[in-house]
Amino acid sequence: MKIVKPTLLIDEQKAKRNIRKMLQKARSNGAELRPHFKTHQSADVGEWFKDEGITKATVSSVDMARYFADAGWDDITIAFPYNPLEAEEVEKLAKRVTLNVTIVSKMALYHLNQHVSAPINYYIKVDVGTHRTGILPSQTEQIKEMSLSENPNHHLVGLLAHAGHTYQPMTKSSAEKVFMQSMKAFRTVSEIIGRHDLIISYGDTPSCSILDDLPGVNEWRPGNFVFYDIMQEYFNSCTYDDIAVCMACPVVAIHEDRNEVVVYGGGVHLSKDFIEPDGERVYGKVVALSDDGWSTEPIASVVRLSQEHGILRVSDELLSSLEIGSLVGILPVHSCLTADLQGYYVSLAGRKLNKFNKAEA
Amino acid sequence: MKIVKPTLLIDEQKAKRNIRKMLQKARSNGAELRPHFKTHQSADVGEWFKDEGITKATVSSVDMARYFADAGWDDITIAFPYNPLEAEEVEKLAKRVTLNVTIVSKMALYHLNQHVSAPINYYIKVDVGTHRTGILPSQTEQIKEMSLSENPNHHLVGLLAHAGHTYQPMTKSSAEKVFMQSMKAFRTVSEIIGRHDLIISYGDTPSCSILDDLPGVNEWRPGNFVFYDIMQEYFNSCTYDDIAVCMACPVVAIHEDRNEVVVYGGGVHLSKDFIEPDGERVYGKVVALSDDGWSTEPIASVVRLSQEHGILRVSDELLSSLEIGSLVGILPVHSCLTADLQGYYVSLAGRKLNKFNKAEA
Repeated sequence: MKIVKPTLLIDEQKAKRNIRKMLQKARSNGAELRPHFKTHQSADVGEWFKDEGITKATVSSVDMARYFADAGWDDITIAFPYNPLEAEEVEKLAKRVTLNVTIVSKMALYHLNQHVSAPINYYIKVDVGTHRTGILPSQTEQIKEMSLSENPNHHLVGLLAHAGHTYQPMTKSSAEKVFMQSMKAFRTVSEIIGRHDLIISYGDTPSCSILDDLPGVNEWRPGNFVFYDIMQEYFNSCTYDDIAVCMACPVVAIHEDRNEVVVYGGGVHLSKDFIEPDGERVYGKVVALSDDGWSTEPIASVVRLSQEHGILRVSDELLSSLEIGSLVGILPVHSCLTADLQGYYVSLAGRKLNKFNKAEA
Repeated sequence: MKIVKPTLLIDEQKAKRNIRKMLQKARSNGAELRPHFKTHQSADVGEWFKDEGITKATVSSVDMARYFADAGWDDITIAFPYNPLEAEEVEKLAKRVTLNVTIVSKMALYHLNQHVSAPINYYIKVDVGTHRTGILPSQTEQIKEMSLSENPNHHLVGLLAHAGHTYQPMTKSSAEKVFMQSMKAFRTVSEIIGRHDLIISYGDTPSCSILDDLPGVNEWRPGNFVFYDIMQEYFNSCTYDDIAVCMACPVVAIHEDRNEVVVYGGGVHLSKDFIEPDGERVYGKVVALSDDGWSTEPIASVVRLSQEHGILRVSDELLSSLEIGSLVGILPVHSCLTADLQGYYVSLAGRKLNKFNKAEA
């Protein structure tokens, strides 16, 4: 497949290595891996997980749950607060597959109980310190109410948390500290409910990557790790060599006077997320493409982005090696958002990999 | 159409009013309006321009040019540097419609001349101070070479510039200053080429909105103005009442303890662009939805975004008026990027409006 425009390449071998490594780590912890598919959003990539024996998935929307149900996944957790307006869609899906929903308040449970009749497993979402959403361990009365389903078809099966506050440069020690706090929150909530058989579902990519052990966690739910990205490298979750996606971008202008190169590849391809390692925004790191992939160490940075333009700051050496029509690789800052922007992916073997399509949802 | 998930609503009346206002302004300046369609990317919205007698369009990619050619547009400018890798696609399109391409260097013209045989009109892209790309007025020799096509089918028809440095809070006086500098650059380049019949193509949304007159400009090329957004309001290009798009988002969690509301609507719906008016990032402004649209003045802000979650900071009053399952409206920060993320739009009358689909490109 000839690449003529911004195209997200997937290194299948690296992605599969990331999957196997995480699976092995979860298993050696006695835990199950229920990977988050919001990163790749692809039935084709989902097969790589299936090939390793993974049968349970996590998604971030009802639409994505339906997409993966259509692709044969029959045990799916929607790790996003139950949305009362989608009760009908939840009902339909729950009749087809084992559906696990996330409950963040007693009002949400009440609505689910009243408006969905199909069998549902539900998790109580615990706020372990990120303060995005979820119930605080101090909300004793509400936790008790959330544990008591009024609908006999709805079963509390576990506690679920996302430690979003690990999304910053971490050391093993700071990751351990967050983990200890999270486990304390889980224990408090379990005790309030009075059940010790609840599935403890946890696992952002930084925690699952940096820590060797997550004792007490029954289910790991990382997503980003399948691709990783330069943000995760910056957080110390991975090395550049682990990053399994790279945007191939055509060079369209070269500005020798300011050591800048303009590529076809902008905010609508990469997303506007950035890291700011030394006080300067970086929107991606440039690597050299070759027939069998890309160079591991970055050779330049993406310093500005507009809708379709990416501006690279490059060395004299790199500048003189490029011409318009050259292809460069860009390792994305945040692979989940970059992947979301694609219509499809292309493997290094040139195979088009399908993806959840918003227009069809 | 029942809205149950994040859905970008278009107020057709406001969009049409924005179109008519800009068209009238361009015409009263004796200029043509060649609107940039990268904002809406929709054949349905394109019809609203056609209804006003607009027959020429601007796009930002070859794929988008093909999409609008399929929708009946037969005079299209690709206002993005000519990409040598897409020569074949350019050739095909140029056989179907009047195609105008953007040339940023002599190497680009040389490649076009050698690899495309179909008739092409081309514009020389002038860097008027944004320093994204384009030729500097000081590059005399290269400008001369860029004006001389070696292919008799390729004709230099104009000079094109984008003053991206107007994308900040502007006054009429600062916008005038940028405009004067741009016109000076155009004059220098015209004199080097020795032609005074070249189309002067200009017109970012801030300049075209803030200034009453753009003397000397023959073709206005704004795009964002059809929808506007809170970034443009912040730049003084529009009022809140001019903003023609609003994301309807379901409330999924309410956190009274910290006056925060969580909606279904995150970075994959709104994009991660933000404004920072008082040193704090704002990812969108909240308005109240009603049957016939939304309230004009914002009532809260989106203060954080993750992939699917939006976090609103709200007053006690707003908080107490909401419950899970309520719908709130969010005026986007950057409507071009928000629109790009949608699979389709929905008009206030409940009509689904189609959109360029990356999966099909």
